[in-house]
Amino acid sequence: MEYRQLSPETVPGFLKDIPSMQKIFSDLDDLEVEEVGDGNLNFVYKVRQRKNPEQTVVIKQAVPFLRIVGESWPLSRTRMNFEIQALEHHTKYCPQHVPQIYYSSTDMSLVVMQNLNRHEVLRGEMILGKIFPKLAEHISSFLANTIFPTTDWCLTGGEKKAMVGRFINPELCKITEDFVLTNPYEDHETNVYHDEVTQADKDYLQQDSQLKVAVAEMKYIFMNHSEALLHGDLHIGSIMANEEETYVIDPEFAFFGPIGFDVGAFIGNLFLAYCAHEIRQPMLGREPFEYRNWILQTAEETWNKFQSKFEANWVAHEQNFPHSYWSYPEGRIGFALQRQRFLRHIFEDTIGFAACKMMRRIYGLAKVADIAEIPDLKARLDVERNVMRMAKGMVKQRSAFRSIEELTALAQEISPLR
Amino acid sequence: MEYRQLSPETVPGFLKDIPSMQKIFSDLDDLEVEEVGDGNLNFVYKVRQRKNPEQTVVIKQAVPFLRIVGESWPLSRTRMNFEIQALEHHTKYCPQHVPQIYYSSTDMSLVVMQNLNRHEVLRGEMILGKIFPKLAEHISSFLANTIFPTTDWCLTGGEKKAMVGRFINPELCKITEDFVLTNPYEDHETNVYHDEVTQADKDYLQQDSQLKVAVAEMKYIFMNHSEALLHGDLHIGSIMANEEETYVIDPEFAFFGPIGFDVGAFIGNLFLAYCAHEIRQPMLGREPFEYRNWILQTAEETWNKFQSKFEANWVAHEQNFPHSYWSYPEGRIGFALQRQRFLRHIFEDTIGFAACKMMRRIYGLAKVADIAEIPDLKARLDVERNVMRMAKGMVKQRSAFRSIEELTALAQEISPLR
Repeated sequence: MEYRQLSPETVPGFLKDIPSMQKIFSDLDDLEVEEVGDGNLNFVYKVRQRKNPEQTVVIKQAVPFLRIVGESWPLSRTRMNFEIQALEHHTKYCPQHVPQIYYSSTDMSLVVMQNLNRHEVLRGEMILGKIFPKLAEHISSFLANTIFPTTDWCLTGGEKKAMVGRFINPELCKITEDFVLTNPYEDHETNVYHDEVTQADKDYLQQDSQLKVAVAEMKYIFMNHSEALLHGDLHIGSIMANEEETYVIDPEFAFFGPIGFDVGAFIGNLFLAYCAHEIRQPMLGREPFEYRNWILQTAEETWNKFQSKFEANWVAHEQNFPHSYWSYPEGRIGFALQRQRFLRHIFEDTIGFAACKMMRRIYGLAKVADIAEIPDLKARLDVERNVMRMAKGMVKQRSAFRSIEELTALAQEISPLR
Repeated sequence: MEYRQLSPETVPGFLKDIPSMQKIFSDLDDLEVEEVGDGNLNFVYKVRQRKNPEQTVVIKQAVPFLRIVGESWPLSRTRMNFEIQALEHHTKYCPQHVPQIYYSSTDMSLVVMQNLNRHEVLRGEMILGKIFPKLAEHISSFLANTIFPTTDWCLTGGEKKAMVGRFINPELCKITEDFVLTNPYEDHETNVYHDEVTQADKDYLQQDSQLKVAVAEMKYIFMNHSEALLHGDLHIGSIMANEEETYVIDPEFAFFGPIGFDVGAFIGNLFLAYCAHEIRQPMLGREPFEYRNWILQTAEETWNKFQSKFEANWVAHEQNFPHSYWSYPEGRIGFALQRQRFLRHIFEDTIGFAACKMMRRIYGLAKVADIAEIPDLKARLDVERNVMRMAKGMVKQRSAFRSIEELTALAQEISPLR
């Protein structure tokens, strides 16, 4: 099939030619198409059958440029190949947290998938102060269950290396390398500062040598440690949820990288929300304690559950496929020590990457609405300064934290949980 | 060209069809061919013109099986593609320590190259107690100059990722993963123990949980950290030298891996020789001090010179292509701190991999003649126990050594430099 860019007008005809659509729509001549304008990179269409609107799909199509800028910023459509491969992987290992995929085409650079019409993007909901009681449980499962199967603890060296090769994703990695791990820490032309930001604020991030070395080390880890297949962009805008269900979407940044990058992306976004809600809860007319306490609990629970689920996967795998390496009288002690030290290493990376994901949202090009849409710039600046203080302590001292509770304690020290 | 396995009879005809051979041989009808039987993996032929034996080349051809075992152990010929690519890289960045390549063919899985006929394999020469005064100078240059250009300090993310993909070398990496980083540390069927080795000796290596976790961590680093293009097998049997010149050969294990693996391979082999010469120097009728002192000096000098040359390459590159990241008043302090911390990290990996390269030579399948050909088994066992003690201290405590001199001090503590 030759690539062509779809439009609301051509979507119905396109779907009609896909045999599996007959299982979803009872009348393929009665579709209505709505273009959803919120993607930075891609075009997204919601398709419903007019008379049975519960018969519905979403189409996501990549175009050969950065949608938010236009055709002047070329970006290869191959990003959709990574998304399709990653969705297949996620579906295989954690179907309950991945939208159902009905059809995909690398030629057309698109997927047709479940319309998550009873769910909302988590970031928007969290800005409104909604609590998701199962979020930590679900995201920790998604992380542990999608990440473990592509580590060396599970794959053979040959299988892993072949997969690493298939997932070399230079274009989207470069976006992270530049916009998450480089530009915000220098006075770069792509940064965006609001009017209240002082030179001292910028220097606090951009002229602290210890911090810059620590961030450069995280960037080096990002570029060199091909530990497992990652989602690659697991902020709270890549999650759709309601109180009962949680779905992870948009894995076009998928690549083999350091495990702590995915875990840290999510936890860093929770800390951003924690800092923002010092202002946002009063804006919503509420006492800030309850919601912010839930955020910190969610951060703690996510790490602690991820850790125990990852370890449980590992122990189960070792029971099914025991290594003779550990088959000596005290071998289980060695294996337990190995797991403990490995998860300690993932924790350190998690803290470092969480910090980078926080800092980049302040001066970097891509902001988070949690903070950037606080209308009072002075109040916004207070939040941003708290984020910076916390993140700096995290990445510089990442090897000193012994538990996630020490991290949430730092958050409370900087922005007290009143 | 279709692949065919050469033989001494077919080599002259093959060379005659290569135009560039006319520049080397004045009479292509007058060649004599000698098959050199010392390769484990490949066939090697020395070709000379009978009347002008200084007109000479070496041909190295891969066969689709492990030569030392035979056709029953298949091993893909693609290993020669990696060797050819790596030789090209080494020639580009460090021609003075790489044999000249006259011709290569991936179809035929062979290279035709300079016959290093005034040089000998370093291991054999060191067993005989010969001193190579320029060895550390040359190998530190080879390491710093071939490794630096493929790090992220030099390549863009896109260039590096493309190269990483081209150098995914699963078959030869698996040999290292199994025979260097797994099997020797368990009671594996591929291990070979001589008659004096006791159960306690085996357990000292194979039932020490702390050690096994440390080795598993080195294996994980080997499999996950794609820092730079490595030689991949830089023991002293991959070096040919005389007093004036040093050549590095046989890079078929080339892949993107942790920098410390190459540095550690060489330094670990020096420590093996150091331990062996406690016995070998008396066997040669000499006092052991002078030669063993030279070995330790060579280890120290190799690391210290590698470190300063690598850093000099980095500083020069930064001067030519400055990063705006460090362009603030105290930026040079940040950049200096980054280099220091990075080289500290390489040092830690170097110690860990040197230790693995030492331990694997004792019970693992592939021995080193330095030790394995000591005829008195009790004397050999004493050497082996020293190697084990030293290597265990190295890999377990790899983050505690502050300088290479602390490492050579450990060597002297275990096997005094009398």
